[in-house]
Amino acid sequence: MKPDPIDLSSLFHPASVAVAGASPNFPKWGSIILHNILRGGYTGKIYPVNPTASEIFGIPAYPSIGAIPDGVDLVFVVVPPERVVDVLADSAVKGVRTAVVITAGFSETGSDGKEIEDAVAARARELGIRLVGPNCMGIASLSPKKLTAWMPSFIPTIGPVSIVSQSGNVGYSLAWALTGRGIGVCRSISSGNEADLTTSDFIRALGDDEHTRVILSYVEGVDDGRDFLLALEETTQKKPVVVLKAGHTAAGARAGSSHTGALAGTDELYEAAIIQTGALRAASIDQLIDFASVLVNQPLPQGDRVGILTLGGGWGVLTADALEVEGLTVPPLAQKTIAALDEVLPPWWSRGNPVDTVAGLRKGDLKKSLQTLLSTDYIDSLVLCGFGYGTARGSFLVDSPYADRYGMRDIGNRFIAEDEETARGIVEMIDAFEKPIIPVVDQGVIERRGSFVEILKDRGVLLFPSPRRAAAALAALCRYAGHVRHHAG
Amino acid sequence: MKPDPIDLSSLFHPASVAVAGASPNFPKWGSIILHNILRGGYTGKIYPVNPTASEIFGIPAYPSIGAIPDGVDLVFVVVPPERVVDVLADSAVKGVRTAVVITAGFSETGSDGKEIEDAVAARARELGIRLVGPNCMGIASLSPKKLTAWMPSFIPTIGPVSIVSQSGNVGYSLAWALTGRGIGVCRSISSGNEADLTTSDFIRALGDDEHTRVILSYVEGVDDGRDFLLALEETTQKKPVVVLKAGHTAAGARAGSSHTGALAGTDELYEAAIIQTGALRAASIDQLIDFASVLVNQPLPQGDRVGILTLGGGWGVLTADALEVEGLTVPPLAQKTIAALDEVLPPWWSRGNPVDTVAGLRKGDLKKSLQTLLSTDYIDSLVLCGFGYGTARGSFLVDSPYADRYGMRDIGNRFIAEDEETARGIVEMIDAFEKPIIPVVDQGVIERRGSFVEILKDRGVLLFPSPRRAAAALAALCRYAGHVRHHAG
Repeated sequence: MKPDPIDLSSLFHPASVAVAGASPNFPKWGSIILHNILRGGYTGKIYPVNPTASEIFGIPAYPSIGAIPDGVDLVFVVVPPERVVDVLADSAVKGVRTAVVITAGFSETGSDGKEIEDAVAARARELGIRLVGPNCMGIASLSPKKLTAWMPSFIPTIGPVSIVSQSGNVGYSLAWALTGRGIGVCRSISSGNEADLTTSDFIRALGDDEHTRVILSYVEGVDDGRDFLLALEETTQKKPVVVLKAGHTAAGARAGSSHTGALAGTDELYEAAIIQTGALRAASIDQLIDFASVLVNQPLPQGDRVGILTLGGGWGVLTADALEVEGLTVPPLAQKTIAALDEVLPPWWSRGNPVDTVAGLRKGDLKKSLQTLLSTDYIDSLVLCGFGYGTARGSFLVDSPYADRYGMRDIGNRFIAEDEETARGIVEMIDAFEKPIIPVVDQGVIERRGSFVEILKDRGVLLFPSPRRAAAALAALCRYAGHVRHHAG
Repeated sequence: MKPDPIDLSSLFHPASVAVAGASPNFPKWGSIILHNILRGGYTGKIYPVNPTASEIFGIPAYPSIGAIPDGVDLVFVVVPPERVVDVLADSAVKGVRTAVVITAGFSETGSDGKEIEDAVAARARELGIRLVGPNCMGIASLSPKKLTAWMPSFIPTIGPVSIVSQSGNVGYSLAWALTGRGIGVCRSISSGNEADLTTSDFIRALGDDEHTRVILSYVEGVDDGRDFLLALEETTQKKPVVVLKAGHTAAGARAGSSHTGALAGTDELYEAAIIQTGALRAASIDQLIDFASVLVNQPLPQGDRVGILTLGGGWGVLTADALEVEGLTVPPLAQKTIAALDEVLPPWWSRGNPVDTVAGLRKGDLKKSLQTLLSTDYIDSLVLCGFGYGTARGSFLVDSPYADRYGMRDIGNRFIAEDEETARGIVEMIDAFEKPIIPVVDQGVIERRGSFVEILKDRGVLLFPSPRRAAAALAALCRYAGHVRHHAG
């Protein structure tokens, strides 16, 4: 039975928000939340609620929710645990349908806290208010109203990826990483103790959210495992969901149960069940981000056969290893393909897959090689390794005290330009063939942030700093593509 | 039988070098090598050898090795394959004992190339010259003469880690990463086709090299597996050796055999045998660097029991999972420890390992917590998670348009200062207790390069961007410590 959909529009795009417990006493939580809402540029109405202050951060404050002159869509609650019930009662009168309880000191502290939490949840149900939390870090909902009502002192960039996290810190890390990698955040929900709304509810709601293209979920444990799997199954029909299930060892499970009070499930069962829903399983925060980047920006491959094009042999070997470990295929090249590449590549090229050009590419050869490989019917995606050195190499020459000799300055500038041409070629070929091209480069190339990196970043093509990470991300993309084909077919 | 040690002093610290095939024709290999030697600041004598040029880069050139007026310690060979034998004959007359043959077009191209390679190796043997290569990227040997006679347009910083790589590109990546992470490079050898000197020879020589503290080796295949294992066994008595064995899948092995002509061994056998020698096995380039960083800069732990101290619960759970996956132990806390931490931590702390402070640390509490955990006899090392946000958090406040209100600017500066105090506390505690402390922080914290990061970097304490990478590095450190204890006991 599919439960009725929960309407979270007042959570995702409220026209007005109140902060119960807003404070001018920095850095109390009630001051941080309000400051972050202001810094994020929220375009709706903001009502700070504080018993004594007449204004906070220059915004008129109200002594109670009841004293607010207009209706309120969403309330953030930062008052002490024992006062939460009263805030909810006041809120209901104002037409509030959703409250985010940031306050801690509930079930995560033991049985006394659990009693208070149960009472809060029961009262909310009576009042018709849905709860996020308690003991959470708040939420960010960037489309369309730029609401950053959370604890982290950080405003993410806007993008297509949404986060549901049972750890506020992990949610923060994910939002920070999505911003740093240029992907951006749509919504980020810290679900806290989940006294009412659960991870499953949020995943379903994000499945129906037109602004969200990919969902990332950090899960320590769920009370209703069956509903969680159902939520995944429904949602993966609409968009990719990537799950990081923590607490999968005995030590991790002990840590998790003291963290959110959640009962961590047996790993093997979960793993199998999660994958059967069509969700993707990530093994780390890095993988959540890596998977999101390819799901958002690469075409879906038609199969699991991967071509490798490398400037240097070692990278090719490591990539072939990594792809095979991930269960992908590195097919041999057809004679026709070898003959076509013979026209382009230097005589000593590897004549196999990986295509190792042994540092011997001339101008324009890369694009021709990509075209040759991508136009075959037995290569579904490409990993490109060891490119992007031109910028570092070129700058090394241009900056040399010997730059005036032997045309070194011009050659250096040419190297830099060749990198840019490579980047444009990759972008062009992805769009021309609608097959994924995953670039793997040195961490140093990424850190340099040269035009090579920037051109690719503008198209959303992220560079992977290691063959293993690239292979894991490509495998996730292939699994999701298989899931889509299966349901389309 | 232990073979006679090979004297590679003329390779590691030559008083003079010749470049046979030096060229003013940029970017020919012979111009790049010479330029890189000059840019690196080599303090010995340099003799470019070119049939027609009278000087290159302002340095007097000679028409042949024989025409050089003095003796020569080391020759770099960049002439075409068919001329290498003549260069070697000339070199022998000058007293050259080691030649680095960068030239490609030998066994890696097929059976014709193999014949030329065999002839070169045979002639070198007759002449008493040891060969590096052919088909290699050259070498860097930074202590004491700053020799960077290699193809990469890059000068590494000097440090205690040496590299032996069967892929020039991977060797370059390693040197770049060691420089980027502030660890630095001692020597880097691109072993190429290993027609004479092998990975095993280089590992042995680096084992006896007083400037090298840790050896990293990228291996695709070895002809004499038994000698390789012997070399590892001998060398790990002296210092840590970390091996990345590539080509461990069928696809990778195919790629490797076309790359260096090496026959890749069966993975399972290798893996077991390599670990038995006391060498550490890395699964990726990242792990080579991660392992090097802790081996160089952290004390050796007395056992495998790890304490976790975290600012946020999610990080603790992921770290506990990662440590257990690596085979390390996350022991429960003794009552005495819990009581001692009760004095320091906020009432809601987790009361277990991971020690989750739930963002509730006051000034000075971190150091007291570290002291409490490190002074126990059942915790051998610590992983510290989720710190270092103070700099980003503080800057967010200081830069706020509301910074003048509520003392926000002062509070922001205090957050930044607290990060610095945390960093100093970590350094102090590592040295006081001689137990490793491995910090895991957000990638964003590392990229910010604030004073928190810099204070730790100055002491060589590198920050890990993920629990999994930290756990793998700590596990490697524990394995090496166990190996040392085993051989001492």
